[in-house]
Amino acid sequence: MTDTAWLGTACPRPSDAHRNAAEARQSILTKPPGSLGALERIAIQLAALQETERPRADTVQVILFAGDHGVTAQGISAFPSAVTVEMLRNFASGGAAISVLARKLGARLEVVDAGTLATSEIAGVVTDKPCHGTRDFSASSAMTGDELAFALNAGRRAVERAASQGTDLVIFGEMGIGNTTSAAAVAAALLGTPPDDLVGAGTGLDSDGIRHKSRVIEAALDRHGLKAPGIPAADVLAKVGGLEIAALAGAIVAAAQSRIPILVDGFIVTAATLAATRLNPTCADWLLYSHRSSEQGHRLILEALGAEPLLDLKMRLGEGSGAAVALSVVRLACALHGEMATFAEAQISDAL
Amino acid sequence: MTDTAWLGTACPRPSDAHRNAAEARQSILTKPPGSLGALERIAIQLAALQETERPRADTVQVILFAGDHGVTAQGISAFPSAVTVEMLRNFASGGAAISVLARKLGARLEVVDAGTLATSEIAGVVTDKPCHGTRDFSASSAMTGDELAFALNAGRRAVERAASQGTDLVIFGEMGIGNTTSAAAVAAALLGTPPDDLVGAGTGLDSDGIRHKSRVIEAALDRHGLKAPGIPAADVLAKVGGLEIAALAGAIVAAAQSRIPILVDGFIVTAATLAATRLNPTCADWLLYSHRSSEQGHRLILEALGAEPLLDLKMRLGEGSGAAVALSVVRLACALHGEMATFAEAQISDAL
Repeated sequence: MTDTAWLGTACPRPSDAHRNAAEARQSILTKPPGSLGALERIAIQLAALQETERPRADTVQVILFAGDHGVTAQGISAFPSAVTVEMLRNFASGGAAISVLARKLGARLEVVDAGTLATSEIAGVVTDKPCHGTRDFSASSAMTGDELAFALNAGRRAVERAASQGTDLVIFGEMGIGNTTSAAAVAAALLGTPPDDLVGAGTGLDSDGIRHKSRVIEAALDRHGLKAPGIPAADVLAKVGGLEIAALAGAIVAAAQSRIPILVDGFIVTAATLAATRLNPTCADWLLYSHRSSEQGHRLILEALGAEPLLDLKMRLGEGSGAAVALSVVRLACALHGEMATFAEAQISDAL
Repeated sequence: MTDTAWLGTACPRPSDAHRNAAEARQSILTKPPGSLGALERIAIQLAALQETERPRADTVQVILFAGDHGVTAQGISAFPSAVTVEMLRNFASGGAAISVLARKLGARLEVVDAGTLATSEIAGVVTDKPCHGTRDFSASSAMTGDELAFALNAGRRAVERAASQGTDLVIFGEMGIGNTTSAAAVAAALLGTPPDDLVGAGTGLDSDGIRHKSRVIEAALDRHGLKAPGIPAADVLAKVGGLEIAALAGAIVAAAQSRIPILVDGFIVTAATLAATRLNPTCADWLLYSHRSSEQGHRLILEALGAEPLLDLKMRLGEGSGAAVALSVVRLACALHGEMATFAEAQISDAL
């Protein structure tokens, strides 16, 4: 079995000294104190993580993990599984939303097939998967322990590739027809929340479809004994998770261990983030939350994580697209922090 | 008296044909329908305004109007009036928040002294003012009819300069110690809303300061007879407005008349926008709302305008800074709209 002991290694602590210095700097810039709102908060958090007085989000790696889901056999998605692989080609050829965003933002985009149904390599896509899709978790465990370990390590390997090229922060994205079902099941098990509160339209279910999806999850949680409190996150991932969701969880822990701040995307990435914080609570310091998606349930997971996302644009696309949009805001926050004049430099009168 | 008859000229209507074409395009891009949320809405609105299938926000002009306020004599601001002129120099020398943002975004920044206390020209600032600050509106009208007309036309002149250089959209900003007091008074009069609901901390008042500011406005509304319904917006602006607020209102009407979409900033610009829509209701089509500021009262004015701002970042700085941050999101919305592949182009399966 592939080793996953690294998951438990503690992540570094943010630097209090640099946080304090960044807060002090914000207070002497030529603006009323606190008037840049969330932009101040994000710049200060990044300064503490990057151990610098002038945080940066210039060099950014987007890593998108894709996987397929056996549970699509239960009719829980508006689109067929074939779309996952079709979209892999679209990511690679530059036509998908995240492709356009990465290009506009000058961010590197790596697409990892972490477990799709693709039977051959796809040009421009890194293949790093233990099997072709998960099993239908309404009938059996989604994956074996070995498959789970492989996927967690695939996430770590992707972070190692990113780290070797240098990156100021990382954005993780995902694609996988059926993965809002898996993400909702994972979150329901980890939070002890009824699936009804976590299940949404995904790519476009109607209300009957949403009810059916919720019933499929409810039955799976019963079947796998996931309604009891305190089930380890690894067990939850193996039973109802997805290969891309497991890769995301591994990648999040690995990035935090490697001192790389993570700009967290929407519903599925946030569910994987929840799993990551259960696998290794010390990764929480390294998480910056980008947006609140309109997928029902995202709000609940964000609240459980104590997250205050920057944006609420009613997006529900996945792919890392919400985080990519937020990156433009993070960059402006860094620029303001680093480049505004101080009251002294500008010879401006203090408050009365 | 300077002519203001132009204010009544109807603004062009958005193109329904281009709106429909943009909506149709959004529906065939490789994503679940509606999944880009507000980004779809903003791209479609811009397409209708720019009469194109591929909207743009590449070339952008930021125009910042500054003015001083006699009502600062009543102790309604945390900073002294001297800061307005000091900040003009900071804008021009590149150290202010809007300077940093405009630079990062590659937007042109023009700073207009529309009525500050400055007694000489400031390098890098366009001086276009009828007088040096308003009179204290707790004791008399803030400005004469001629001064108001001059300021409204100063706004129009700034738009003419921007239009001559070409601009895909425009951002208006403001600076003026005391102008949250004037903006709250204008909004209270136009909406018939108690000042208590519209008055906030501005640059940093404590709760006693906020109460005092509200009482000053309340008394001024009584003194000027502005609690009656249906007072013309021009009368409200003359009695309790500011020169930069009047310039903003004139600029907003003039931009809409010139087919230039306006990305509306925070509390003060939104109060000026409210006045503009009373001066000429047909300008409303040309308004895109950028953010909800944390200045108490902004939410109420936005609701009165039926606005759904893109961002809510707890900013309360003014200068056009919130709109500038939102510009980065608008640009990504345009890129997604114009550059994503369609389902047919990417050979992707439709929904089940």
